[in-house]
Amino acid sequence: MPPIRRLVLDVLKPHAPSTVEFARKVAAASGVDGANALLLETDREVQNIRLVVEGDSIDVDEVEDRITNLGGTVHSIDEVVAGDEMVESRDVPQDWLPP
Amino acid sequence: MPPIRRLVLDVLKPHAPSTVEFARKVAAASGVDGANALLLETDREVQNIRLVVEGDSIDVDEVEDRITNLGGTVHSIDEVVAGDEMVESRDVPQDWLPP
Amino acid sequence: MPPIRRLVLDVLKPHAPSTVEFARKVAAASGVDGANALLLETDREVQNIRLVVEGDSIDVDEVEDRITNLGGTVHSIDEVVAGDEMVESRDVPQDWLPP
Amino acid sequence: MPPIRRLVLDVLKPHAPSTVEFARKVAAASGVDGANALLLETDREVQNIRLVVEGDSIDVDEVEDRITNLGGTVHSIDEVVAGDEMVESRDVPQDWLPP
Amino acid sequence: MPPIRRLVLDVLKPHAPSTVEFARKVAAASGVDGANALLLETDREVQNIRLVVEGDSIDVDEVEDRITNLGGTVHSIDEVVAGDEMVESRDVPQDWLPP
Amino acid sequence: MPPIRRLVLDVLKPHAPSTVEFARKVAAASGVDGANALLLETDREVQNIRLVVEGDSIDVDEVEDRITNLGGTVHSIDEVVAGDEMVESRDVPQDWLPP
Amino acid sequence: MPPIRRLVLDVLKPHAPSTVEFARKVAAASGVDGANALLLETDREVQNIRLVVEGDSIDVDEVEDRITNLGGTVHSIDEVVAGDEMVESRDVPQDWLPP
Repeated sequence: MPPIRRLVLDVLKPHAPSTVEFARKVAAASGVDGANALLLETDREVQNIRLVVEGDSIDVDEVEDRITNLGGTVHSIDEVVAGDEMVESRDVPQDWLPP
Repeated sequence: MPPIRRLVLDVLKPHAPSTVEFARKVAAASGVDGANALLLETDREVQNIRLVVEGDSIDVDEVEDRITNLGGTVHSIDEVVAGDEMVESRDVPQDWLPP
Repeated sequence: MPPIRRLVLDVLKPHAPSTVEFARKVAAASGVDGANALLLETDREVQNIRLVVEGDSIDVDEVEDRITNLGGTVHSIDEVVAGDEMVESRDVPQDWLPP
Repeated sequence: MPPIRRLVLDVLKPHAPSTVEFARKVAAASGVDGANALLLETDREVQNIRLVVEGDSIDVDEVEDRITNLGGTVHSIDEVVAGDEMVESRDVPQDWLPP
Repeated sequence: MPPIRRLVLDVLKPHAPSTVEFARKVAAASGVDGANALLLETDREVQNIRLVVEGDSIDVDEVEDRITNLGGTVHSIDEVVAGDEMVESRDVPQDWLPP
Repeated sequence: MPPIRRLVLDVLKPHAPSTVEFARKVAAASGVDGANALLLETDREVQNIRLVVEGDSIDVDEVEDRITNLGGTVHSIDEVVAGDEMVESRDVPQDWLPP
Repeated sequence: MPPIRRLVLDVLKPHAPSTVEFARKVAAASGVDGANALLLETDREVQNIRLVVEGDSIDVDEVEDRITNLGGTVHSIDEVVAGDEMVESRDVPQDWLPP
């Protein structure tokens, strides 16, 4: 089966552990070269972050386990790239036109 | 006949199998180098994803069969590139001007 | 006479043959390196696509014949590049300013 | 005198000869490497196109003569680049701020 | 544990020490190659700056200590990159669509 | 003193001499590698153009003299780059935020 | 201490000396490779310019002294980069979302 190269996840997490800890632990999963955690929203109890994980062959289950072990919840899987080469998403006219 | 190099599909799929599984199975079709699956919309029963498939000579029928076998439906073919070289789409003034 | 290097066409086509077939047949015309077909709009009877054709010396008549033979109609010629080198279009201040 | 390297012209032309013919004939002028013709607007009698002409030393008079001989009218000269090197235009704050 | 490569912080600081002093002191933390301080807002008592810190292995605690020692407060951690390679954040359709 | 490398001028000129003539004469000033003249606005008597002049060591007085000799008036100096290296302008948050 | 590599200043200046003179004198400060002066606003008495200064090790005090000696006032320090490498600022979601 072709490897997973990018995973974009919408994650809810408690304030602690910090986003720094989160990015570091996810980046330590097997097959991961790096992880970007972007803060989308904060409220009193939780933070909503977008997690972008890239690597030559991401172990998706381990990434999700690490998120759960840190107290986070994967709210949605927003983008996935699989295969030998990175493929970018594309805009289509529906994206430009008003509804 | 010239090979197909890119295929952008608007796909409806059930929640399971996951988008990760979907991207992986499509990326395994013959002539495919990689697949990007972007989540456009989720509701209770289905997910709407944009699938971008690239390769030197994509087997379009196999890609569509794999989508069907995973329970998905191709809602529309949004972009196709055929030939020896990748050709990008172009903006034209109608795209900038208000209707 | 200088060769034609790019042709952007606004095309109306029936649902069958598919956009995949369309892109492939246009990409097979002489002097064409690749063709991009982007879906602009679909209704019950027809599809409106933007066709971008690039090559070292595009045989414009053959491209138009192939479109006609597939049941398509060229609605307008939106961009043409001729010459030894590819020249891109330019924005001018009229494009930025409100009317 | 320094050579002209780019010329952007706003041109009105009859429907025939076609934009393909127009681009080709302008690209054949001396000192021209390529010409881009972009359709801005069509009505029953005329078409309004933006013509971008690039070359190492464009013969401006010949370009204008060719346009006239094809039945076209130069409505305005929208951009000119002269000199040994291509210089691009610049945005300034007046372009971003509301009036 | 994978190293921290980028840290984007929203910081409140008093007017003195100056932003120049701030950027310089943060850039001197271990594992930091450079720091960018962008002024977001000024009022009578405080300035709100966005601090982007990059390096091969940023000592996050030292960065935060230096900010505190300069009289600043970290209001939020807006982005973190961890791992062997820099990973950029991604737009997803929720970012383009109106709410 | 460091050399001037770029000059962006807002210029009013009569219709004759043409913008082509204008760009050419300015590009012939000493220390100039190229000049871009962009038409901003036309009315019955005058044209408003943006002139971008680049070079290793632009003779600013000669550029202004040439403009005056062609019947033009420098309305404002919109951008100047001086030094051994080209430095680009920067956006700051005030540019993005509504007033 | 790490060197200052970029300084973006919001400056008020009288009409004379000219922006050309201003850019030139600032670019002559020690450790400066180049300076960009962009006109933001003009009124009868003063001009508001954005000054971007770049170099391997900018002498900030000398830059500010030169501005003062030319009759200018530094209204705000909008961006500072310090360190061995240039670091760019980053957009964060707060910048895209309406307030």
